[in-house]
Amino acid sequence: MNTINRQVLLVSRPQQAASVDNFRLVETPLAPLADGELRVRNHFLSLDPYMRGRMNDAKSYAPPQPLNEVMIGGTAGEVIESRHPDFAVGDRVVGQFGWQEYGTSNGAGLRKVDTSRVPLSAWLGVTGMPGVTAWVGLNRIIKPKAGDTIVVSAASGAVGCVVGQLAKRAGCRAVGIAGGPDKCRYVVDTLGFDACVDYKAGRLVDDLAAATPDGVDGCFENVGGAVLDATMARMNAFGRIAVCGMIAAYDGAAAPLANPALILRSRLTMQGFIVFEHADAWPPALAELAELVATKQLHYRETIAYGLERAPEAFIGMLKGRNFGKQLVQLV
Amino acid sequence: MNTINRQVLLVSRPQQAASVDNFRLVETPLAPLADGELRVRNHFLSLDPYMRGRMNDAKSYAPPQPLNEVMIGGTAGEVIESRHPDFAVGDRVVGQFGWQEYGTSNGAGLRKVDTSRVPLSAWLGVTGMPGVTAWVGLNRIIKPKAGDTIVVSAASGAVGCVVGQLAKRAGCRAVGIAGGPDKCRYVVDTLGFDACVDYKAGRLVDDLAAATPDGVDGCFENVGGAVLDATMARMNAFGRIAVCGMIAAYDGAAAPLANPALILRSRLTMQGFIVFEHADAWPPALAELAELVATKQLHYRETIAYGLERAPEAFIGMLKGRNFGKQLVQLV
Repeated sequence: MNTINRQVLLVSRPQQAASVDNFRLVETPLAPLADGELRVRNHFLSLDPYMRGRMNDAKSYAPPQPLNEVMIGGTAGEVIESRHPDFAVGDRVVGQFGWQEYGTSNGAGLRKVDTSRVPLSAWLGVTGMPGVTAWVGLNRIIKPKAGDTIVVSAASGAVGCVVGQLAKRAGCRAVGIAGGPDKCRYVVDTLGFDACVDYKAGRLVDDLAAATPDGVDGCFENVGGAVLDATMARMNAFGRIAVCGMIAAYDGAAAPLANPALILRSRLTMQGFIVFEHADAWPPALAELAELVATKQLHYRETIAYGLERAPEAFIGMLKGRNFGKQLVQLV
Repeated sequence: MNTINRQVLLVSRPQQAASVDNFRLVETPLAPLADGELRVRNHFLSLDPYMRGRMNDAKSYAPPQPLNEVMIGGTAGEVIESRHPDFAVGDRVVGQFGWQEYGTSNGAGLRKVDTSRVPLSAWLGVTGMPGVTAWVGLNRIIKPKAGDTIVVSAASGAVGCVVGQLAKRAGCRAVGIAGGPDKCRYVVDTLGFDACVDYKAGRLVDDLAAATPDGVDGCFENVGGAVLDATMARMNAFGRIAVCGMIAAYDGAAAPLANPALILRSRLTMQGFIVFEHADAWPPALAELAELVATKQLHYRETIAYGLERAPEAFIGMLKGRNFGKQLVQLV
């Protein structure tokens, strides 16, 4: 049994853009388990945009990530040792162990997952926090009706891909916004969106207008900044905007909303939400999403970095949109 | 019987700020009434910020005011001639005759009002469209709970004064934002708000922080721009923002929202609304407001300009905040 745990700590806070220098890899001895504890070998780390906000020492909905502690984050792995009655060696579990190879727990916050029909990594993506995020924003805030046009930014990502596919299943026109022709092609050809606008092509406003001939009824916003401005200008009366992410602002850049008077003119509703505050949505959302994945009706894509030491650069790449689909680190 | 009707037409659209040159006073002959028609002598014109938006040739929730036609607006007056079975000479009526001394109608959209307990002019203000606007934004969007802190901008105005007084009746802390020490004193001393911040004093952010020690749970926004930015920065988790007006943007000025990431961070809901789209709210709102006015439990103030020819300058003054309370034109 391995007695050394490799961990990545946050050792400094970014001034503007996050950098790999904000992190440090350390080795820590593993203590023997106490009664009631179990140990997990993490196989996957989930890298998600919200983590960028936690790196700042700013007032937010959650306390900042403390310095010189293991960087937070969702994890999926396997129980390798247990002195806990509810967990057996071999159980697959999803938890919040952060950026380290081994997690030790009293079981609180750990969730066993069934990997017979849904792969372990998906429980961090489309059948995990990002998938439930999509489900909550779409069903509880946007509340789509058949025939609505729904726009989602970061459309090829772990959240966006679920938003569009669920919108299609609800009879809507699904329009994605993504960066680059490869992602846009994937969003239309594989995910089945009706259209996808490449925001890097330099014609965001015109291309979005062409892709939304009947205007926009629902917007699932992951990005903010110019992307949100373009979508707001297309919104129909009584449109709903679910504010899930503002990645454009995470690195400290100003990302003002150019024309808030549209909220009045088009009688829009904008609502920010955090998926962890919708606890009652998780069971129905996960049941629906897992069934769709198991029956190949919900598609997704992953970008996997291999090895704990690659987590910082993979995370920073994701903030810059270099990932294609859900960004994971596989611990080899 | 007078046979000449004096009217004010919109004759050009503002490029930036509206000016008196956008209007022209004309005299028009009054045609004899047809069967089913009635004629009203208007006593009061209602001047309201929303009219500024109608002067632009821009897509909005309502078509633009056509050029060379009588400027729109609410009116209160008295039936002076009737060939309509439901209206008698002497009836007091509120309608949408616009900026003219006489209105001729088939009765559609006219509403008889009881001036025995509530003065005629109030039916254009606290017991009219502005009062119902306050009632809808507060009760249907902000949904205040006892102990909440509610901030309202343009607090001494026709809408704002009702928002704060209803919020106090609901057990809330009511904080106004207004321009100048006289208005702020009135908001606290006469209207009974807990505090009022003078946005012209140059310490908006600090003064608002001092006036909202427990943060802000509900914001009734009439202004936008820096005023809204300051309030948003004070909002508590799950705060509600009713977007009623964006007077800061009406003259074509850019009024971006500085930090929309707060919508996410504080899980805010922002909702724009138009009172005419809440038809079912009018009867209960007017009944409640009229009773409060009649029993002297709801206070308000009016700024009255005398004579139709003063309407343009009074309107432009109101856009600049020169009015104190509801701005009216009395037709003498």
